[in-house]
This record gives sequence, structure tokens and C-alpha cells, in this order.
Amino acid sequence: MTAQIIDGKAFAANLRGQIADHVARLKADHGITPGLAVVLVGEDPASEVYVAAKHRQTVEVGMASFEHKLPADVSEADLFALIDQLNADPNVHGILCQFPVPDHLNERSVVARIDPSKDVDGLSVVNAGLLASGEKGLVSCTPLGCLMLLRDQVGAMSGMEAVVIGRSNLFGKPMAQLLLQENCTVTIAHSRTKELAGVCRRADILVAAVGRAEMVKADWVKPGATVIDVGITRIPHPEKPGKTKLLGDVDFAEVSEVAGAITPVPGGVGPMTIACLLANTLTACCRAHGLAEPEGLTA
Amino acid sequence: MTAQIIDGKAFAANLRGQIADHVARLKADHGITPGLAVVLVGEDPASEVYVAAKHRQTVEVGMASFEHKLPADVSEADLFALIDQLNADPNVHGILCQFPVPDHLNERSVVARIDPSKDVDGLSVVNAGLLASGEKGLVSCTPLGCLMLLRDQVGAMSGMEAVVIGRSNLFGKPMAQLLLQENCTVTIAHSRTKELAGVCRRADILVAAVGRAEMVKADWVKPGATVIDVGITRIPHPEKPGKTKLLGDVDFAEVSEVAGAITPVPGGVGPMTIACLLANTLTACCRAHGLAEPEGLTA
Repeated sequence: MTAQIIDGKAFAANLRGQIADHVARLKADHGITPGLAVVLVGEDPASEVYVAAKHRQTVEVGMASFEHKLPADVSEADLFALIDQLNADPNVHGILCQFPVPDHLNERSVVARIDPSKDVDGLSVVNAGLLASGEKGLVSCTPLGCLMLLRDQVGAMSGMEAVVIGRSNLFGKPMAQLLLQENCTVTIAHSRTKELAGVCRRADILVAAVGRAEMVKADWVKPGATVIDVGITRIPHPEKPGKTKLLGDVDFAEVSEVAGAITPVPGGVGPMTIACLLANTLTACCRAHGLAEPEGLTA
Repeated sequence: MTAQIIDGKAFAANLRGQIADHVARLKADHGITPGLAVVLVGEDPASEVYVAAKHRQTVEVGMASFEHKLPADVSEADLFALIDQLNADPNVHGILCQFPVPDHLNERSVVARIDPSKDVDGLSVVNAGLLASGEKGLVSCTPLGCLMLLRDQVGAMSGMEAVVIGRSNLFGKPMAQLLLQENCTVTIAHSRTKELAGVCRRADILVAAVGRAEMVKADWVKPGATVIDVGITRIPHPEKPGKTKLLGDVDFAEVSEVAGAITPVPGGVGPMTIACLLANTLTACCRAHGLAEPEGLTA
């Protein structure tokens, strides 16, 4: 068997196109422009690259992009004053503070300061609680992106066995909640799981998010299963000196011979994250204005 | 094999004894009396019996018990005014509104009105989010009670396979979170699960909470597993006309021949719920006063 490759890059581009259409209609019909504010503290080069990509994609779909760069030694009080101002700003529908932040700031306190209805990263305790309670909130972008890929690839997931490897607040736990909402029988596996290969072999849907390069081997995968690879490990490029290469948690060469469908790294889950950030911002904007939410953009 | 019977009644009595000791020390050392307020709307007979039991046990452990009975036609505004008053009252450390409430009131709105730090039923979105995020909150009483029984019976659960049947917000989902915190490999099964018997047979720890009398049969259980039965179904008593009998989700007669340990119904999980309500009230009181929390009373 050779697996179908799930093209997250193309899916994300299509999703951004849909979002751009919705944004255009919001402007034309209601005079509303969804706005995303990104706060960057300090000058971490990787964060700057990522924030620039967010800015570019935000503008491309027709949204307003507000960038706030604060010095690395900004006080918590000054950062919170900015967040309070963005919380109160009716032109801002989504707020995101790029992590990591410098050590003198506490990430959980920063997230807690953001109005949950503008927490488009879906990281706050309130949004985790809404998801855990099956209520409408904002869902963390990477698990939301995986859900969209799975809905597209698998369709109805009811009764399927899903296994999520990894139990982070950022990904594994919300992913498990989303799969449960889709009526999967959900198992959460992690570093303490015994016979991890055997647990994974049960899965009709296998989602790996641990950050251990090529950990999932062919004999971990049920023939025909759908495999979603969320892990990213950067290694020196084996053939191009001075360059690097990204590896996922799944041994793609091996597993693609067994799985029914699989996301590559790069080009699978990765591109979905920013697209889902834009989807969340659009959803938050519609809710803020009491307008119907576009279908298929949230859980 | 004949399973060890997990005596929840004795465990709960012992737990109440420990709580009474802590309460006595709080009074002696700090002049503080933990207080639990129970709000009952209308005159549902089952609720009145339950509230009376809570009142009696609250007083027995030395806590202050505040009962508020409101007429069945109380307005939401009047109920919320009472909750606001209890939220502000420094003598009240735990607040519980007995459910069900009459149809004109919305349970989720009522729970949302209670200060999360006094939500000793652990039902609010904020407490669900704290649990889902691995942060300190108040945990729903019945899953907390099951956790205490499991810690006592099994000890370290790391790496064990746990299966929870049922995915309610009240029980199944928080139970799964608690087992994950104990480093179990956790599977959540439910009405859409295929081959439920086979899924259950994987479990070293099997927790059933669906409310289908004697559903779990001997061949659903791995020999030696620990089985926690949360289901309660009341049927006419087969031998005593006019009387009723309680049945669990587990066929006790059959499964007790296979399991390593099992909770009976009644006398297993049931008595733990009110004991854990008192444990949560004590925990909330200690937190409100900035005092160290007694160990072993929360997750």
C-alpha cells in the first residue's frame, strides 16, 4: 500500500481563500474588517520570522493586522496595559502574544489577561474549559487544523479508534477533546505509556505530537490508518552542508507504505496553524458582531 | 479469582474523620470554621433527601452548614442575587446549587454565577479548564472520590491502561483527566464505541459511568483489573414488593469472579461523593485563607 499524501499546504491555501471571501463579504455587507493584533516581546529571530508570516497572511486575506513590538525588558504592568487596551479596542477581534516571552514574564498570566473571546490561540483556561465542556469557545490552532484535515480526509469519524501521542495543553489534550466530539473512541498515550507501538497499532486515526524525530515506525501503524504528524524536529541537512531539514514524529518513508493517508513534514500540519489563526479571528469577529459564523471554520 | 471488595462506605467514613480533624485544627489554631452553603430551588423530594444528608454530614465534621430554600418559581435574578451574596460572604467557602433546578432556570448559567473558587461541585467552565490545563482548581466530587479509591487500592497508576466508559462533563471527562494526571494511558469509550467489550478488556483500571444496569459482563474485564462502578439504576426489588434496589453498570456477581478489586453498588462510589464535597469545601477554605491545603484531599 502506498499512502495518500495529505497536502496541508494546498488545504491551507484553499482555507485562506475561503476566509478572504468571508472577509470581503463582511466588509461589503456590514462595513466590518476583522482585525488581528500580535504582540511580540523582545527580538527572538525565530519569533520575528513567524510574526512576519502571520502579518503577511493576515493582510492577504483582507484583515487588519496590528503589530505591537515591545522591548525585551518590558514590565508586566506595561504589557498588561497594552493587552487591556487591545481587549477594549472594537477593531481588534483577535489577540495573540508570541511565545516564548522573556523569563521575567509568566506565559499563563499573559494568556489569562487576554479576553477569552479574543484569545484566538485558544490557550486560556476559559477556552480549555469551554472545549472540555463541549461549549462554544476558541480552539487552539494546531489541533483545529488537524481536525479540518481529518474531516476532509476521513469524513465521519464516529466509532473510529483514535490515538493521540502526547498530552500537552497546547496540542494533545485539546486534540483528544476534538476527536471525542467527533465520536471517536479516544486514547491518549504519552511518555509513560507501556507498549506504545501496540497502542498505536489500534488506531484508525493516529496523531503524533511528541517531537521525537521519526519515532513512529511502519509496524506501529494499522494498515490503512490515517496518520497525522504534528512533530517538528530540525536537524542538519544530510546532503546540504550548512542547511537544515525538518523531520516529523513519523518515519515517513516507512509509514507511507502502510498507512492509508499521511501528512508530510513539512507541508502537512504546519501550514494549517496560521490559517486556523485567521479562521479563529474571523469566527471571533462574527461572534463579536452577533453575525452567523461561517461553517467549517471551527470545531 | 474472587475480587477484593472496595469498601467505599468505610473509606468515606474514614475520610470524613480526617476532615473533622482538619476542621478542628483550623478552629483551634486559626479561629476559622469552613462553611458550605447549599441552595435548593423547589421541593423535589429526592433533592430534599440528598440536601438533608449533605447538611447532616457537614455539621458532623464540624463545618458550618448554610441552607437556602427558594420557591420553585424563584426568578433567575433573585437566585443570582443570593449566589452573589454567598460569593461575597467570607464565612461561606463552598457553594452548591442542588440540581435539577426548575425548567425556567439554566443550570450552566447558575454554575457560571458561582465564584469558581467556591464552586465545590467543580462544575464550572473555569474549573473544567483548570483541570484540563493541569492547574489547581476544584474537581468534581464523584471523579475525585473515584481517584481517592483508586489511589488507595492501586497505588501508583503510572503506565496502566485505564478505560472510562461514558463521557459526561460531570463524570467521564474529568475522570479521564484525573487518570491522565496519574500517568495512565487513558481511553474514553462511549455509546458510539465499536467492540466496547474488547476496549474494556484492555483496561487495568475500568471505570463505568453510563447508567445501564449490569452492562459490564465478566468477559469484558481483564483478569485482575480494578473495576470502579459509578452507574446507578433503581429497579423494583425482585424479592421485596414495594421496595426498590440499586444496580450498578457492572454485573457484580459475574465480574467479581474475574476482577482483582471492585466497588459494590451501593456502598462503593456513592458514599464518596458527599465526603469529597466536604473535602473540596475544606480545600477551598484553606486556599481562601492562604493556608496549606491538607494532603490527599484533592487531585
